Amino acid sequence: MTSRGVVAGIDIGGTNTVVGLVDLRGAQMSELRFPTQAHERAEEFLPRLVNAIRELCGGLPPGNPLAGIGIAAPAANSRRGTVENPANLNWGTVNLVEMIQEHLDVPVVVTKDSNAAVVGEMRYGVARGMRNFIMITLGTGLGAAIVVDGHLHEGEHRIAGEFGHFTVDPNGRECGCGRRGCAETYVSASGLRRTVFDLLARRTDAGELRTVAFNDLTAEQVFRLAQGGDRLARAAFELTGVYLGRMLTNIVAALDPEAIVLYGGLVNAGDILIGPARRSFEEHVLPLYGGKVKILTSALNNGRAAVFGAAALVRDLLQNEHTHVLQDQITQ
Amino acid sequence: MTSRGVVAGIDIGGTNTVVGLVDLRGAQMSELRFPTQAHERAEEFLPRLVNAIRELCGGLPPGNPLAGIGIAAPAANSRRGTVENPANLNWGTVNLVEMIQEHLDVPVVVTKDSNAAVVGEMRYGVARGMRNFIMITLGTGLGAAIVVDGHLHEGEHRIAGEFGHFTVDPNGRECGCGRRGCAETYVSASGLRRTVFDLLARRTDAGELRTVAFNDLTAEQVFRLAQGGDRLARAAFELTGVYLGRMLTNIVAALDPEAIVLYGGLVNAGDILIGPARRSFEEHVLPLYGGKVKILTSALNNGRAAVFGAAALVRDLLQNEHTHVLQDQITQ
Repeated sequence: MTSRGVVAGIDIGGTNTVVGLVDLRGAQMSELRFPTQAHERAEEFLPRLVNAIRELCGGLPPGNPLAGIGIAAPAANSRRGTVENPANLNWGTVNLVEMIQEHLDVPVVVTKDSNAAVVGEMRYGVARGMRNFIMITLGTGLGAAIVVDGHLHEGEHRIAGEFGHFTVDPNGRECGCGRRGCAETYVSASGLRRTVFDLLARRTDAGELRTVAFNDLTAEQVFRLAQGGDRLARAAFELTGVYLGRMLTNIVAALDPEAIVLYGGLVNAGDILIGPARRSFEEHVLPLYGGKVKILTSALNNGRAAVFGAAALVRDLLQNEHTHVLQDQITQ
Repeated sequence: MTSRGVVAGIDIGGTNTVVGLVDLRGAQMSELRFPTQAHERAEEFLPRLVNAIRELCGGLPPGNPLAGIGIAAPAANSRRGTVENPANLNWGTVNLVEMIQEHLDVPVVVTKDSNAAVVGEMRYGVARGMRNFIMITLGTGLGAAIVVDGHLHEGEHRIAGEFGHFTVDPNGRECGCGRRGCAETYVSASGLRRTVFDLLARRTDAGELRTVAFNDLTAEQVFRLAQGGDRLARAAFELTGVYLGRMLTNIVAALDPEAIVLYGGLVNAGDILIGPARRSFEEHVLPLYGGKVKILTSALNNGRAAVFGAAALVRDLLQNEHTHVLQDQITQ
């Protein structure tokens, strides 16, 4: 098999999908973004994905064709090539690898979005050289990946890292998984939105947030309002940060990492979220861990860590000529 | 260095200390138990420990002297040889290795009680052959150890596995660590005792439990009453099991193990605790993990997994002639 040519790295998020072409040296050549439409079925999403890949590949020089596709998706099972009942997509269980290969005749690998982001972060980001760290992806939901002694810990059934479904309140908010009080119903873009509406119910502050319907509100809008001084928007970010900080104390107590790397759309909010999260973490962390664990934010945001990581995984697959390279190849 | 002779394995619990002599083939030769006296300082505890070791060694044949001592203790730092502010002992931070070597001139290693128990369980217990499992020690407190891909995961600062300090209720019970609502204030022998007193306050059931002072009540007594049909004692075990089951759902979501091995004094209660824990686990676990993870109980209870594990670690040290063997030697 060849290591020639260009590979596509794809990050399928609950809100947006990012397709990037990455060359041999790991440099990104071009990128396309489109809305994922979480309510659609996978069969409706697929043509748009295939078209986006074809559109990007149209610009490739002759003799340098697309060599493979690496996909980062929620609830992905890398062994089976499936996406299995993702909480934030209306897909059920589908074999994404087979679906894509019906249209594009190249090797395809699929891996959990959060795992792909880890690979990107370890190769190109703030986690270079680290042996023990946790990456938390704050997007529409909350994903996570665990690196133990330089290896991605995928778990016995390759479904580790579901910190988003830690129960933080047994009587709390309903979750897409069918249970209550999962961390991601508080700590995620959709959690932020729910916190805004909880505060709209509890408090009396006037402002633009009272004019927006639940389905129309985005995390970006809450961020813009918070930057402009809207008290309720600021309170929503503050609360989300406090929830996040407390959640990190549990993760640190479990795994004793060198660092936590925060990644995903919500992290673009910067200090308005990360400030309260750091303060809450330092206030509540078990004294044993005080001052020992770094809380970092990714420098490969907007889906790029996952795009680069997914591209790197299919590149490794092409170079190593076997299919179960994931566990080994992400080890440097 | 020699691999001749006998080694001592010691498990220092919040309630009892167990000292065992283990021969070359890993068979236990003799054992002594004495109360730890958690309120005492380490300096007061030490003479009793040294005397127990000397008493056991008095029975050794000439020419087969004590070759080394392996100690399992709470909040131990194996790198430094210290025990650091254990929540359930009034010790502060002490260098246990140096303290013992002032009296007994043999190699001494100290490791976290829960880590030692894992080593014992992997070599001689229900976890033989497993690559990914979690061991939960339900004693006076709640300890845990994580095995990832056949290796003990000690963490970046060798303090991983503090599941006992997961915050399960931010406004919950005060914990020895200075915070509130830690899992071990509910799920442990002392948590069971606190649950009994909470139920005595909430409910009106008559019975023997109303005649016992907090400091006099033991988990064994609650167990005996529960076996005899005492409704409040049964309710206390039931609630402790429900808390335990919910806690396991979070651990499984984080790490996706093959099994959870339950160990420690409280596990002697058997089905009266493990039954509700299993039901609560199956009811609340993220559907993704349903039916995938085994909840097992140790067959090396009463401190013996830790005694055997600590003995195995010092034996490995003697055979390998270097001091930082822990991380490597527990790998089969």
